[in-house]
Amino acid sequence: MKASGNCFKVRLLLEHLGRTYRWVEVNSAAGETRTAGYLAKNPNGKVPLLELADGRTLAESNAILCYLAEGSKYLPSDRWQRAQALQWMFFEQYSHEPYIAVARFIMGWLPQDHPRRAELPRLRERGYQALDVMEKHLGANEFFVDGAYSIADMALYAYTHEAHLGGFELTTYPAVQSWLARVESQPGFVAHRY
Amino acid sequence: MKASGNCFKVRLLLEHLGRTYRWVEVNSAAGETRTAGYLAKNPNGKVPLLELADGRTLAESNAILCYLAEGSKYLPSDRWQRAQALQWMFFEQYSHEPYIAVARFIMGWLPQDHPRRAELPRLRERGYQALDVMEKHLGANEFFVDGAYSIADMALYAYTHEAHLGGFELTTYPAVQSWLARVESQPGFVAHRY
Repeated sequence: MKASGNCFKVRLLLEHLGRTYRWVEVNSAAGETRTAGYLAKNPNGKVPLLELADGRTLAESNAILCYLAEGSKYLPSDRWQRAQALQWMFFEQYSHEPYIAVARFIMGWLPQDHPRRAELPRLRERGYQALDVMEKHLGANEFFVDGAYSIADMALYAYTHEAHLGGFELTTYPAVQSWLARVESQPGFVAHRY
Repeated sequence: MKASGNCFKVRLLLEHLGRTYRWVEVNSAAGETRTAGYLAKNPNGKVPLLELADGRTLAESNAILCYLAEGSKYLPSDRWQRAQALQWMFFEQYSHEPYIAVARFIMGWLPQDHPRRAELPRLRERGYQALDVMEKHLGANEFFVDGAYSIADMALYAYTHEAHLGGFELTTYPAVQSWLARVESQPGFVAHRY
């Protein structure tokens, strides 16, 4: 789904790796992840989904990143560094995406008078907590894992660079802003267009 | 924190591995994850946290499982199998724990008249969706990754075996029930006591 940051993560890595792939648009907002055909491939009914040439499938954006990045410079081979990358990717899915991406969804995809707008104050509070954690780390580190650009940065970039669409103000997060620019200056970087 | 399923996961793996460790109780319900001392170790202020002998720290229960299981039979070395294990662990943190663990927390730790009880119907709906996905997989597979007990099972066992404390009824999930029993019969299994 083009508009999904979780799907964008995968595209960003594939572009960095120069891998050939086919993008199959599946619009979850239109119910396309709930068809029998899609559920047969991903019983959890979510995008993105990686389908290999032999038909095997893999769900969960950050698991897909780990799988595709294996053996490349985007996933460290050192055991401790790998663990750090995973730490930040689990942080992203548990403490960041459910607030920052969901606020963007409510503001950008639901009508102005939708009852889910009542969730926004709590989403903002928790989303800013996640940004605080990122700011603290990035104040002392260029990237999330040992000073080198990795899939942990791609995972966190996906929704952070669109946090303003969920009503988040990044002016008091200078280290996050500098990091966004560093990510965007990486060789092979592609912007999220939809 | 003894009552936390996320912390229990780590203990379960350490026991399976026969590793020596020291358990330091940190009660997040009593604010102990929000002290300056704790935040210096884990800026995200959550348990569990792994602290190595040399002082390095690692947060996020499932990242800790991956780190500790490396090189053991509990984390496959095959690239595709590892990706499957990660897929289920990200599923657990995004589509399972936020509903099943949070319902258990609201019912077991908050007063009967607490306003957060209003969240229970939605938590139950989403939690049952996660259990449906598990039931489907376990109807055709003994464990989550290629027929062998792994850290993906430990991650999903942690809150599934206590789903009833969040008001979930498992009688219509026979495959999940059989799997819970298979996990409990693994050599070195320890029960979650608190």
